[in-house]
Amino acid sequence: MGQGSNSVPHMLFSFRRAVVAGFCALLGTQSAHAQTAAEFKSDSVNIRKIYDEALLRGQSYENLRYLCTRIGARLSGSPQADQAVQWGKQTMEKLGFDRVYLQEVMVPHWVRGAKEKASVKSKKVGKAPTMNICALGGSVATGGKLKAGVVEVRSWDELAKLSDAQVKGKFVFFNRPFDDRHIEPGAAYSGAVDQRGRGAIEAAKRGAVGALVRSMTSSRDDLPHTGTMRYDEKVTKVPSAALSTNSADWLSQALKTDPNLEFELEMACQTLPDVKSYNVVGEVKGSKRPEEIITVGGHLDSWDLAQGAHDDGTGCVQSIEALRLLLASGLRPERTVRAVLFMNEENGNRGGMKYAELAKAAGEKHLAAIESDGGGFTPRGFGVEAPLPVVQNVQKWAPLLAPYHSDKIGPGHGGTDIGPLKDQAVALIGYDGDSQRYFDLHHTAADNFDQVHRRELELGGASMASLIYLLSKYGL
Amino acid sequence: MGQGSNSVPHMLFSFRRAVVAGFCALLGTQSAHAQTAAEFKSDSVNIRKIYDEALLRGQSYENLRYLCTRIGARLSGSPQADQAVQWGKQTMEKLGFDRVYLQEVMVPHWVRGAKEKASVKSKKVGKAPTMNICALGGSVATGGKLKAGVVEVRSWDELAKLSDAQVKGKFVFFNRPFDDRHIEPGAAYSGAVDQRGRGAIEAAKRGAVGALVRSMTSSRDDLPHTGTMRYDEKVTKVPSAALSTNSADWLSQALKTDPNLEFELEMACQTLPDVKSYNVVGEVKGSKRPEEIITVGGHLDSWDLAQGAHDDGTGCVQSIEALRLLLASGLRPERTVRAVLFMNEENGNRGGMKYAELAKAAGEKHLAAIESDGGGFTPRGFGVEAPLPVVQNVQKWAPLLAPYHSDKIGPGHGGTDIGPLKDQAVALIGYDGDSQRYFDLHHTAADNFDQVHRRELELGGASMASLIYLLSKYGL
Repeated sequence: MGQGSNSVPHMLFSFRRAVVAGFCALLGTQSAHAQTAAEFKSDSVNIRKIYDEALLRGQSYENLRYLCTRIGARLSGSPQADQAVQWGKQTMEKLGFDRVYLQEVMVPHWVRGAKEKASVKSKKVGKAPTMNICALGGSVATGGKLKAGVVEVRSWDELAKLSDAQVKGKFVFFNRPFDDRHIEPGAAYSGAVDQRGRGAIEAAKRGAVGALVRSMTSSRDDLPHTGTMRYDEKVTKVPSAALSTNSADWLSQALKTDPNLEFELEMACQTLPDVKSYNVVGEVKGSKRPEEIITVGGHLDSWDLAQGAHDDGTGCVQSIEALRLLLASGLRPERTVRAVLFMNEENGNRGGMKYAELAKAAGEKHLAAIESDGGGFTPRGFGVEAPLPVVQNVQKWAPLLAPYHSDKIGPGHGGTDIGPLKDQAVALIGYDGDSQRYFDLHHTAADNFDQVHRRELELGGASMASLIYLLSKYGL
Repeated sequence: MGQGSNSVPHMLFSFRRAVVAGFCALLGTQSAHAQTAAEFKSDSVNIRKIYDEALLRGQSYENLRYLCTRIGARLSGSPQADQAVQWGKQTMEKLGFDRVYLQEVMVPHWVRGAKEKASVKSKKVGKAPTMNICALGGSVATGGKLKAGVVEVRSWDELAKLSDAQVKGKFVFFNRPFDDRHIEPGAAYSGAVDQRGRGAIEAAKRGAVGALVRSMTSSRDDLPHTGTMRYDEKVTKVPSAALSTNSADWLSQALKTDPNLEFELEMACQTLPDVKSYNVVGEVKGSKRPEEIITVGGHLDSWDLAQGAHDDGTGCVQSIEALRLLLASGLRPERTVRAVLFMNEENGNRGGMKYAELAKAAGEKHLAAIESDGGGFTPRGFGVEAPLPVVQNVQKWAPLLAPYHSDKIGPGHGGTDIGPLKDQAVALIGYDGDSQRYFDLHHTAADNFDQVHRRELELGGASMASLIYLLSKYGL
């Protein structure tokens, strides 16, 4: 783009589109929540106020800078996770929310230990490149060097068809890649992450000594992606590591040249006793229906390899910001709104379960729970996990969000942290942003503050605040 | 995002949405182009083929790598612009398009010369930081060091209100920032770029010795943004330079401390005689209506500070890829489709004007011209520059593009290169991608291949190919 003279002020078009879309909404099918023309106009003005505040005076980017660069990686049980709890509490207290408190929760405490080492020995293949690996979260250690052959599979069927002799005493190498045809990388992730989750169990059942898992990404690079894996108490626990996609591709080729090559792995990770930690909750009481609650949250813990910027520092700062934007725009919510920084999403979801348990015990009524845990990229809309009529009630607000390109609303997934609230909330709602870059960074050493774009992040907080404004005014 | 177990295969939702949206389309208002249910289904399948080809075997990313890293910056008149012409021709010839040819066009030849220097002298302010500047494209040189006072303005009104004594012999510093409230940075650009375009003219009219212009971005950083500026043959030509936003902010503050500070500028740029260059055209003849033409293009020239990746290498490779995707998917277009790599968009638009002139002289009938010149980011939809009924005809295809999040279709801007076709084409159509990061890179030293994301780029080419498929089948 070069010449300025031909450029067109896109805002005008956005405005026109909003007006057209607004009329469509007014003429649309009736619902309990049909807005009047006056309401539509006033809601438009109020949402514009929220965006102005976010774009001119947004605080989430600077909050994220602190969380990422001053505290950094904060795996459950780490000192940094404790610091993050204090940071979250102080940040919300400074903003003057009505009530800020902690919810105690016991969390797993897994530590990686010394940096993992891996190498390939093969006379046929010759000198191997560095194998870029990392332990999967929850894995046991190797107990010194663990050296064994490798057998590659891309599906559980392939594993089942191997003879015991082909598997026993070896590493099973789970190398099914992302299916690149998916438009949403999240769908490709869903189609591959079973390998990470139960690879070690299925490998051990067949007598393997360990599991090597291709990293969960479409990108071809040298970054190993960690992430949680499971054991079955009835099956031997064998070590499980992620290989970067480049290392996985190389290993796959090398196995064609030398099916008898040997893989040497050394990991010192261990699981320590559970430790005490906290969810952090900031609450603003509803002005008209304080007994109805809208929760908005992200998870405060992160993996240990990076600053946990997109996963999920962005969700935390956006949740805090959503409340701040409402108050700063003079839009005190009619229902009670809580920003919740959940602990331990990555390897246990203990914080999410505790929050739902306490809400249930207290007899709280949740109208909705919103989660941002897909990265702080440009907003696109919301996925609603609820019966279709409820989804449609949310969809009716799309014309108000269209000028902000945040109007793609449909059935979807809420989020892991809010998942346990499923039977206690009318709707679980996931914030959807652009997703193409998320799995390049997810659970790697690259998920740092420098990967977050200021305006993309602030726009996301504004879109969440706008939805909360509508939810708190109209209900569902 | 941590637990895979709760993740949802988003493709399913996309599919559901498409089906729902599809029914809406079928039930929608009548038009000359209403598709039957069978057509909708077959179009869905064909568009899915296009995306599969792009995502599994896309070539635009590797083409862009070559253009950016092997040829690089390619300002009109440069040897690299010549190399890019040859590259474009050979690339399309290898793909077996029916006809590949060049269109001769004379283009301006401006050269930057030695790297620009600038500094601030002030006893009150003390040691100044490095002033990050670059000449604006088309500027005259300073003729050695040019030292003068500085007067800051944010509007033409402010400049008009200054006395001659306040302006004469000084640099006018145009420091109106982007209005961050715009959702689209392109709208903020439109609201600020007049300073770059006519700053030197208006400054010189008042007796100033030069113009300093705040860079065209919302980002706060050290990158000066070049871009074209104009002179008026009746007004003295004074040098004009861009300051990075950090330098501009510093200078503005420094002027508050010392209104009499001095700015020293040295630029060696010059305008050489026009040189011969070319548009590159690759054509696939329509199988049913070859006389109706759909042009899809980007501009091959770039500014000289970087590789011209997002501006506009991405538009070039996507335009070539759009044709390749159609052929590789077995979807030979019914109307003639041309990929056009326009020369000289950045500082003259001579290529765009030549293309329209030749099309007119040949009596060609353009159904549509599509341009990608807003960066190779995740697709969002299309802006249609045409009478409203034509816009609405394009909008009716939105349900087919919705599964790919490329369905935001409305009135909009086509593009600079295709602009001269306005009176010869039924519609000019601009490809719209996510725009938040574009003006961080635009016209700077950072607009390089490493800023382009493979899947985002390939998705964009597929969305353009899908629109061409529909246009070539149904017309407008």
